[in-house]
Amino acid sequence: MRSVCVVGLGLIGGSVLRAAARAGRVAWGATASRADAEAARADGHDVVDLAEALDRAREQDALVVVAVPLPAVEEVLRALPEGVRLTDVVSVKGPVADLVERVAPHARYVGGHPMAGTSASGWSAGRADLFEGAAWVVTVDEGTDLDVLTDVTELALAAKAHVVPTTAREHDAAVARISHLPHLLAAVLASVGADGGPLALALAAGSFGDGTRVAGSRPELVRAMCEGNRSALLDAVDDALGRLGAARGSLASTGGLAKTIDVGHAGRMALQNQPALSDLTLDLTAPDVLEALRDLGSAGGRIVGLNGTTVLARTP
Amino acid sequence: MRSVCVVGLGLIGGSVLRAAARAGRVAWGATASRADAEAARADGHDVVDLAEALDRAREQDALVVVAVPLPAVEEVLRALPEGVRLTDVVSVKGPVADLVERVAPHARYVGGHPMAGTSASGWSAGRADLFEGAAWVVTVDEGTDLDVLTDVTELALAAKAHVVPTTAREHDAAVARISHLPHLLAAVLASVGADGGPLALALAAGSFGDGTRVAGSRPELVRAMCEGNRSALLDAVDDALGRLGAARGSLASTGGLAKTIDVGHAGRMALQNQPALSDLTLDLTAPDVLEALRDLGSAGGRIVGLNGTTVLARTP
Repeated sequence: MRSVCVVGLGLIGGSVLRAAARAGRVAWGATASRADAEAARADGHDVVDLAEALDRAREQDALVVVAVPLPAVEEVLRALPEGVRLTDVVSVKGPVADLVERVAPHARYVGGHPMAGTSASGWSAGRADLFEGAAWVVTVDEGTDLDVLTDVTELALAAKAHVVPTTAREHDAAVARISHLPHLLAAVLASVGADGGPLALALAAGSFGDGTRVAGSRPELVRAMCEGNRSALLDAVDDALGRLGAARGSLASTGGLAKTIDVGHAGRMALQNQPALSDLTLDLTAPDVLEALRDLGSAGGRIVGLNGTTVLARTP
Repeated sequence: MRSVCVVGLGLIGGSVLRAAARAGRVAWGATASRADAEAARADGHDVVDLAEALDRAREQDALVVVAVPLPAVEEVLRALPEGVRLTDVVSVKGPVADLVERVAPHARYVGGHPMAGTSASGWSAGRADLFEGAAWVVTVDEGTDLDVLTDVTELALAAKAHVVPTTAREHDAAVARISHLPHLLAAVLASVGADGGPLALALAAGSFGDGTRVAGSRPELVRAMCEGNRSALLDAVDDALGRLGAARGSLASTGGLAKTIDVGHAGRMALQNQPALSDLTLDLTAPDVLEALRDLGSAGGRIVGLNGTTVLARTP
């Protein structure tokens, strides 16, 4: 089993380190946060400084997991040993891939994004089981290193996540729609509600509570997440503006909202009634395997196991 | 204790009839739905046809509670006896007040809106305790009949709700922001998410699930609710469009979302950390009591009891 070096020991990185250790991997970490380092050591984990952590990674040909916020990624990339096996857990994939290409083109990089909560933070918020049952996106672009793709997939499966293979671009477009736009709309809704003054807040119940819940997340984390996915988020916001503007126009002219409400209902039903999944296997040695993996993710499928070079998948 | 005649025995009307009966009132109902009528009778309630129900209301000087959907209100109003004590439970108050003024100006009308769930419907979905702990808005406009205001307040308190007094206009503006706009934004978000295809839905988690939950409500109920509050909802939508457009502009130009996210966070905190309430009493015989009641509602306060002509209230 490949050793794992986790750089950054906040909620996600801390949980990766715990999950890797629980799965029996040789695993160590580094963090710029003295508090997180001390807490992790107190919990029995192996935490060293960044240089030593990366030296060890080179010696053991370990998988390095970059788990720092996007603005701190570049500094970590500059310190990497040549030809390192590399992944990350940042919530946006295109910008990280661009950074790797610019700063550490020697690295054998496969992007990752475990889709786990962001409302708490720091080592103390992490858990070994944080990723159980969650999707862990792994990027599959042209020229992706199958050996490192296997490393990242094995790590995600060891954390009891399922793996969703897709391109960096498709990932960023998808999360703009199902994660970043929801945060933006929650902020907008919370603002419009608060504009209604104490009466409005006193009358607020289920729909407003649900619709604004994630506006309670730490603003700096939400900003970093949304701003880091600028290009894809702009597309999603434009889609939302177009739809909300059309609703406005329809309400003002005919008084009707049928199209908006009916299409929205169909969208929610599509979320609730996702198709059942069937088993599928893919051969990692097949010449078109990268394309097959991307198709699997695009179709709403997932990797649930690895057996040698055989990928065990489930797909609609 | 004043008798109660409930017209319409769906979720809300059926729950009002149950709550009134549970509180020891003489209470009966009428409904155009044979299924609801049979189910209510089977549960031991007194259900008669509309003409007989309103005849009895005249004989007993009962409070008539109109609990039919907005499009069916006018027909009920046309059948009312002269000078009837009248309230309603429709989710929008200005349009109902306008209808009463036009069709049944003789009625002693005080509008009401118990803020309880709408995702299920029909008699079978109702419960005697549906309104426990909920806000029940009672409209206090110029010339409001204090005697009927007292009737409606007593009914709401008997159902264990608290009463929020406000004008029809302020009510409609508030619910546009905290109920109707959330439904519209949930529909927009669900549509934008579904546009992302199977991959997006496969990655959707907490924020998208929360933000689209009410898009799963029955479309015809959501449409009736939102379309019925057209004018106030247009204002709320314009506020949302302005804020989302500003976020779009900021993201496109500077890449920053600080203002949107920070103001939204403050709004959500205002919802979560509403000020503690202190006791207050109001005298229903005071000359400025209508204004005092409206001020109570505007400030985020509520009526929690009635003792003769003394209103027991709580206010921030």
